[in-house]
Formats: sequence, C-alpha cells, structure tokens
Amino acid sequence: MPTFMDKIPLKTRGEGDIRDITKQVQKITQKSGIKNGLVCIFNSGSTGAVTTLEYEPGLLVDLPGALERLAPKDASYQHELHWHDGNGHSHVKASIIGPSLTVPLKNGHLLLGTWQQIVFVELDVRPRSRNLLVQLIGEP
Amino acid sequence: MPTFMDKIPLKTRGEGDIRDITKQVQKITQKSGIKNGLVCIFNSGSTGAVTTLEYEPGLLVDLPGALERLAPKDASYQHELHWHDGNGHSHVKASIIGPSLTVPLKNGHLLLGTWQQIVFVELDVRPRSRNLLVQLIGEP
Amino acid sequence: MPTFMDKIPLKTRGEGDIRDITKQVQKITQKSGIKNGLVCIFNSGSTGAVTTLEYEPGLLVDLPGALERLAPKDASYQHELHWHDGNGHSHVKASIIGPSLTVPLKNGHLLLGTWQQIVFVELDVRPRSRNLLVQLIGEP
Repeated sequence: MPTFMDKIPLKTRGEGDIRDITKQVQKITQKSGIKNGLVCIFNSGSTGAVTTLEYEPGLLVDLPGALERLAPKDASYQHELHWHDGNGHSHVKASIIGPSLTVPLKNGHLLLGTWQQIVFVELDVRPRSRNLLVQLIGEP
Repeated sequence: MPTFMDKIPLKTRGEGDIRDITKQVQKITQKSGIKNGLVCIFNSGSTGAVTTLEYEPGLLVDLPGALERLAPKDASYQHELHWHDGNGHSHVKASIIGPSLTVPLKNGHLLLGTWQQIVFVELDVRPRSRNLLVQLIGEP
Repeated sequence: MPTFMDKIPLKTRGEGDIRDITKQVQKITQKSGIKNGLVCIFNSGSTGAVTTLEYEPGLLVDLPGALERLAPKDASYQHELHWHDGNGHSHVKASIIGPSLTVPLKNGHLLLGTWQQIVFVELDVRPRSRNLLVQLIGEP
C-alpha cells in the first residue's frame, strides 16, 4: 500500500491572508500515482489553519470577520505576558479551526464540491514562510 | 490494502437541520469488509459541515445558537455583494467547523462514545440535496 | 498494509484542563513500527476535543477564554432541560473544535512544528477518565 508525501511552499502576507491551494494539492495527487484513498493537508505550525472555503473575494473578508468575533485582536491574552509577540489571538483561532484537513480521493480526483476550494488560512500577525504537508495514502 | 467508498444521500430542510448519519456510516463500514483503519466522512460543498454531537433535541438548538454568535445572520457579509444569496454566514460557519471527520475503526466497529453520534450540519439557508462521501481505508 | 491502534488514558480535572499528549502519541508511533502514513488521534466522547496548540501557560488560559465567547457558561442551553448536568456549553464547544486530528508521519516522525503540540481539551464540567484513541495507518 503506497504512501506519498510532498510539500507546498507558501510565502504569506500575514494575518487574514487566505490562499487557495487546491491546484497544488491536485498536482501532488497526480504525481503520487495514488488513485483511491485519502489526502491529508497539514500545517506544521500553531498560527495557521487548513479548511475548505468557496474562494471568492467576499468570503476572504467574511471569514476573518467572524474569527475576530471569536478572538478579538484587542482583547487581553496571557500569551502576550510570556512572549510579547502580539499573536495570542492567532494561536487561539488556529486551534479552533485546526491544522489538518482530510479529503477523499477517487480515480485520482479530489472529491471537492464545485464551489469548494482547499485553503490555508494565515493567522499570524507577520508574513510567514510555510511548508504545507500533503500526505497521500491509498491504492494505485 | 483495500479502500472503499460509498455515499450517503440526504435531503435537508436547510439552515439548522442537523442529521444523525451514524447508522448509515456503520452500514457502509460493514459493506466495505474493512475491519481496522480509518473512516473519513466528507461533505463535498462549502455550506455544510461534519462533526460529532450527542444527538438529543436540546443540543440541536444549542449548537446553532452558538454558531449564530460566531457569524450572526443579520451581520453584514461581503459574500452578499457578489452573490446575493443570503448565505455568507453559512459559508463562514462551515469553514470553521470543517467538512471532514476521521474516525478510527477496530474489528469492524466505529470507535465512537456511547453518547457520540456522527452528524451532518446543514448550514445553507435553503433545503439542499447532499451526497456525503464515506471513504474507508485499512485492513480486511 | 499495517494498521495499529493504542490508547492514551487520561484523568482530567474537568473544564479547561488542556493536556499535551504529544509524547504519548510519539511512543505509540514508535511501538507501531509504521514509518510513513497517517496518525489519527480521536476522542470517544462528546465533551472533549483534540487539536494542536503551542503548549505554554498563557494559551492554556486564552483558548478557554475564546471558547467562552462562543458558548458562555451562563447562557441558556436547551440541553439543560433534558439532562440537568450543566454541560450544554461543553458539548457545543467540543462539536465546533472536533474530536479528531490527523497528522502526517514520515520516517517514523510526527511532522509537527517546533512550537506545536497535540492537545486534548477537556470541556466537561467535571473530572473525567478519558481513553484517547491513536490509530496509525501506513507503511512499515
């Protein structure tokens, strides 16, 4: 049973930068030779998240807006007392959305909806270099 | 190593319709012949989510209540400016809960808790036809 | 293709007790003999959640703080009318974070970030005994 791993390098602009990584995941899937099984997309880090979203300009504003209700930037965070890096709210949001997404694969195709893209949500306050992991597992 | 995929068709009544799909996932698991491994339940679409919940009438009101705090229906959504379909809040909630759930499988049994059911959470504002994907991977 | 399952027993102190289980997951991974693939950590139960977090004292306060905004303890919950166990808010938070986390494995190593730990988030109002499930699947 084969497994296959590759990375998606990203340079983000910091907080609120949401990136459509669907095409990169599809390319890695094709390269893998795995046709049926699961694809896991994972962010190694505690201030970014992976989920799906209809990737259109309105929601790129609306999703950060809702996350701001959950963990407002100007609230008080204990994380700040230890680290002074101003990103306590980033960590909290990342843990609630989660770093991991698992998508089924059939005949080499990711079974996403028509208006559903795989996205990385940058939540950290400064630009970051990310290497998202894409792990496939299944049958050739 | 075998993989197996099947679908769960659902006709939902729209926003706030939470459906217990545990039995359907169990039936597909039995049909698959896979005994040990992982089951991934996935919503192909950007306005519904998959998670677990104690499926009792009170929580079917309480979960939508908390999601309303996160993304109130009557807040302003940029998604509306582009699409005019009144479901900006639906997309936001779906992305935060997430479209995917992965459950361990042992000796053919889903290892859920006694009061834990697998649920689909319809978040769109209108009734929808859904085809949830159930992907198994593991050992016979 | 091998699969391997083991459990992590935990005795929690109740609501807001967040536990770093990274070392336990690493030990199970080593014991499994599986080198490349996926590790799924799952909470069998509807009042606890699994995610990742930078495990430092500040965020152990900040994450519960944000969850309290989402589902305040002193709000009214329909769950209470049926069960009178005072944990309606616990269920809601658990469903939104989710019971399951999937992490890629390479050459026997969990591919976490330097400041990223796997955590169990106890959300129930009383101390609980938990048995987290760790399911591995992949190549030896």
